[in-house]
Amino acid sequence: MTSENKQASGEDSLIARYFKPLATDPGAFALDDDAAVLKARGEDIVVTTDAIVEGVHFLADDPPDTIARKALRVNLSDIAAKGATPAGFVLTLALRSVDEAWLSAFAGGLGEDAQSFGCPLLGGDTVSTPGPVMVSITVFGRLPEGRIVHRSGARPGDRVMVTGTIGDAALGLDILKGGPVAAALTGDRAAKELLVARYRVPQPRNDLAEAVRAHASASMDVSDGLAGDLTKLCAASGVSADIDAPLVPMSVVAAGLLGRGVVDLGALISGGDDYEILCTVPQAQLTAFTLAAGRAGVAVTSIGMVMPASQPPRFLDAAGNAIALERLSYSHF
Amino acid sequence: MTSENKQASGEDSLIARYFKPLATDPGAFALDDDAAVLKARGEDIVVTTDAIVEGVHFLADDPPDTIARKALRVNLSDIAAKGATPAGFVLTLALRSVDEAWLSAFAGGLGEDAQSFGCPLLGGDTVSTPGPVMVSITVFGRLPEGRIVHRSGARPGDRVMVTGTIGDAALGLDILKGGPVAAALTGDRAAKELLVARYRVPQPRNDLAEAVRAHASASMDVSDGLAGDLTKLCAASGVSADIDAPLVPMSVVAAGLLGRGVVDLGALISGGDDYEILCTVPQAQLTAFTLAAGRAGVAVTSIGMVMPASQPPRFLDAAGNAIALERLSYSHF
Repeated sequence: MTSENKQASGEDSLIARYFKPLATDPGAFALDDDAAVLKARGEDIVVTTDAIVEGVHFLADDPPDTIARKALRVNLSDIAAKGATPAGFVLTLALRSVDEAWLSAFAGGLGEDAQSFGCPLLGGDTVSTPGPVMVSITVFGRLPEGRIVHRSGARPGDRVMVTGTIGDAALGLDILKGGPVAAALTGDRAAKELLVARYRVPQPRNDLAEAVRAHASASMDVSDGLAGDLTKLCAASGVSADIDAPLVPMSVVAAGLLGRGVVDLGALISGGDDYEILCTVPQAQLTAFTLAAGRAGVAVTSIGMVMPASQPPRFLDAAGNAIALERLSYSHF
Repeated sequence: MTSENKQASGEDSLIARYFKPLATDPGAFALDDDAAVLKARGEDIVVTTDAIVEGVHFLADDPPDTIARKALRVNLSDIAAKGATPAGFVLTLALRSVDEAWLSAFAGGLGEDAQSFGCPLLGGDTVSTPGPVMVSITVFGRLPEGRIVHRSGARPGDRVMVTGTIGDAALGLDILKGGPVAAALTGDRAAKELLVARYRVPQPRNDLAEAVRAHASASMDVSDGLAGDLTKLCAASGVSADIDAPLVPMSVVAAGLLGRGVVDLGALISGGDDYEILCTVPQAQLTAFTLAAGRAGVAVTSIGMVMPASQPPRFLDAAGNAIALERLSYSHF
């Protein structure tokens, strides 16, 4: 965009080679135009954007296909939590230089995920940067008019539900950084790989979107730690919650580390990068929601109850005592 | 999003202070939710994304309000060229640290432009980076169904039209870098400021969008240099063009520098950052287009004719000879 360092369309050729094959939607115009079109269908368009930065959200030597998958999936997770169906995405990719092997693997992972989640590439911008690699993705979803599921609809008496398992990704990051979890799992390569994979490639729960839309009173994805994100949901809804901490779903590996005292519960429920759905479901909808989740193949666990806003949300131990949390969640600044 | 360096919601507080006031659209939910909603209105949604990087697209000591304006306006320019009306935008802001004065000025400029272009903030992501500041913006526009104006509709015999003046921004960048233009304009502070302002704060031609939609056969914005962008439009349309180079509109300052031999025409028509609209208009629509542009208050100039694709597009001098261009446009890689 500036008038220096011009080369004969290296950027265009790069886009044609690696990203055009991902632009399968007719509204992407094969990336040959200045803009894409999301066709009118009488539905609301849900929009969410999330960026990941080398050295902050992923590590420089992470496999490039996992970087691409994570960048897309953290956004797909938001779309799922709002009850919407993925419609497509735009990508901004800031690179220091062109590494063909890196780009090929990046585009390969991105393309596989775009296809499996039904979320085609609609457009993007590739820019050079002297700094860290950065991937910024904006994902669009479709939703029947006025049917978005907000953070703000939780009411006292609703059940608090969470998908999958909590804490694995934070443990995976600890392993990648050579922390105490890595030491505790020396020799158990399978366990380490499982946790690292949970950090690098989250599993957004898009199959649950329809059940969330049909039955949840409030919903968000857990990206910055269960404790902090629950606090945000409660604040938006003007409610509180009592969570039975022993009911928070853990993987066998995480539960083992917890049992051995390698980590404490607080670290797991305030660790980030889970990308599970946290939602509240009115009692009258609970059976229908659970059955719909089962049909969708997504594990959901009831972990507590929405309460009137007389005090902040609490995580209670088996004896019913509130667990003190050092910190609630991650913040960039 | 990762589980380290947690602080009590510095990021949330930053967003609340500086960016919530910009989220004036009801679909932004005051930035309190995970996603925004573009309401269904039976129109197509046009999507475009462009990022600007410190040291590449703007300079570290550029005034922060101009950085914000440029980041939004380069996208608004694409929306205008496609014939669409701005509907809103999402922002990804990667910062090294929190500088309150910088952020306040940045958000101030962004908010003024969001208001004056009718393009409210819908959502975003603020992340920390160890590298250069980066601003990535995705803008949405609305358009009657199926009415986007492509690059690909130009037909032989159509007139080639361009808005505003060409080359000023490239001259402005030269001044900021202390190049020959700066030397030639020593003492003429007003001229230098005009050119620098054209580089820092482009003037997207959104007022022309309706005329483009009604009358143009093909359209794009000139961001990477008139010569290169015309070549792209011709390639997409399967046509060529003959441009009367002396008709390319120049500011008085640019024309003066050209007359004094400080710059040559090639540098002006292949320089970037113009953010004018380049479009083709069938002869039968020419009067109606020109009148509509006049009503919109946007200067449009006829600079040549679309030709059959027997040779690449040419810029012809007053004697009718093709001008040799060293390079067509900017590429990042």
